[in-house]
Amino acid sequence: MNELRTGPVGVFDSGVGGLTVLRALERAFPGEDYVYFGDTARVPYGNKSDATVLRYAFEDALFLLRQGAKILVVACNTASAVAVDELQRYFAIPVLGVIEPGARAAVATTRTGRVGIIGTAATIRSGAYQSAIERLRPGTVTTAASCPLFVPLAEEGWHDEPPCLDIARTYLGPLVAAGVDTLVLGCTHYPMLRGVIGQVMGPDVTLVDSADAAAEAVGGILEGRGLRRERTGGGACRFYLSDFQAHFGDIARRILGRALGDVTIASAGI
Amino acid sequence: MNELRTGPVGVFDSGVGGLTVLRALERAFPGEDYVYFGDTARVPYGNKSDATVLRYAFEDALFLLRQGAKILVVACNTASAVAVDELQRYFAIPVLGVIEPGARAAVATTRTGRVGIIGTAATIRSGAYQSAIERLRPGTVTTAASCPLFVPLAEEGWHDEPPCLDIARTYLGPLVAAGVDTLVLGCTHYPMLRGVIGQVMGPDVTLVDSADAAAEAVGGILEGRGLRRERTGGGACRFYLSDFQAHFGDIARRILGRALGDVTIASAGI
Repeated sequence: MNELRTGPVGVFDSGVGGLTVLRALERAFPGEDYVYFGDTARVPYGNKSDATVLRYAFEDALFLLRQGAKILVVACNTASAVAVDELQRYFAIPVLGVIEPGARAAVATTRTGRVGIIGTAATIRSGAYQSAIERLRPGTVTTAASCPLFVPLAEEGWHDEPPCLDIARTYLGPLVAAGVDTLVLGCTHYPMLRGVIGQVMGPDVTLVDSADAAAEAVGGILEGRGLRRERTGGGACRFYLSDFQAHFGDIARRILGRALGDVTIASAGI
Repeated sequence: MNELRTGPVGVFDSGVGGLTVLRALERAFPGEDYVYFGDTARVPYGNKSDATVLRYAFEDALFLLRQGAKILVVACNTASAVAVDELQRYFAIPVLGVIEPGARAAVATTRTGRVGIIGTAATIRSGAYQSAIERLRPGTVTTAASCPLFVPLAEEGWHDEPPCLDIARTYLGPLVAAGVDTLVLGCTHYPMLRGVIGQVMGPDVTLVDSADAAAEAVGGILEGRGLRRERTGGGACRFYLSDFQAHFGDIARRILGRALGDVTIASAGI
């Protein structure tokens, strides 16, 4: 058990968005080591088929297992929605996605029982958030919309330019009309557009980001299985990407609030 | 030679955009057979590194060689910009990209010698259009801009919504300011946004799409090497995609103006 306990927490995402989940984990558990894999060679996942997302998720997971991960955190909402059940069935270590924690946070937040969900086409199509919320709080009225242009906008660094507001109005119109009081940002990129999303939804709607909720859930599993590392600090993170990205260092520094060590380019294929 | 002559013309693209090149080919040479490969599992290519685009291009090319292709047409501008020279060096059959034909068309079109080029980040970064144009017509002043949001907009089917115009104004401002009289649409997706691009550039700027120019160049090579099939009609096309795309049939029907046969899902990996 001791040997297992010193293994890193493995986190994967289709690209850089999962760094927001890594940040929440590092803040909550600074004594853990981490290994992050971003599948930048095949990003995005959100507009691919379930079969392909499933195949990529298995390859990403196996890559992290080969790095000695003691727990797998699927930071990507699309991969969480499509693949977490299968990953949990196949692998011996605990596997945790962001859907269930995000749904819990939404259910804890809503007062009116009207919850909005936005995500990629694959996430919304899966119905994963909708069923998790219905299971946790039967009778909740969910309204869901896919927002495919939000990821490229965020990756372009366009956060509050006029087109962002126009696009946000188009996507979010049905959620405003549905009178939701809580909106799940069901994609790790969307918090970067929090400004325009908040502007369109109005001050009475609470925006829920799964990252903190996911970190809390990871803590629960590590404690429950005796996998929590006892150090109070000193953890490190190794970064792997499947494709070189010129701006990765800058983005990561901005999100994590610290300089990175080396970033290794490694194919996810097995 | 006869056996070679009856092989199909192989066309590959990162996704569905290359169907515009296939359409130009089918119209020019209806007696040829075709095999089309769209790498929908790894689309887009335009924001990936050169090394990764090169690897994908080799895998796509080998896939088409295994289908018996007698000539390879790289319909994707990004793969053309990054990989055509290497593909030509490695493979025995002729390999043709869309950059050189597009550059020829631009040089034949411009009156003032001021040419604009738009494309993906990787295409513009490569400088491939810029050097081809300078080689074909020394002294031409080229102004180039990458337009990363155009591909997701086109794939979303947003062609003339208000955000498209805002985004086009932002990207194309420097080209308008440079006073170009010719604009190369250096990505197979961009012709779908021809309306807003034309609106921003104004009526005095000619938009150049490489598809027809590429078809003409393919004809020249087939003739020159005795590979042209003598039939006057009756050609067929086999379609392969690396990932299932729900809307592929609709998009293809709209672009090609005819119903498709079967579409096979096949990994590009070797």
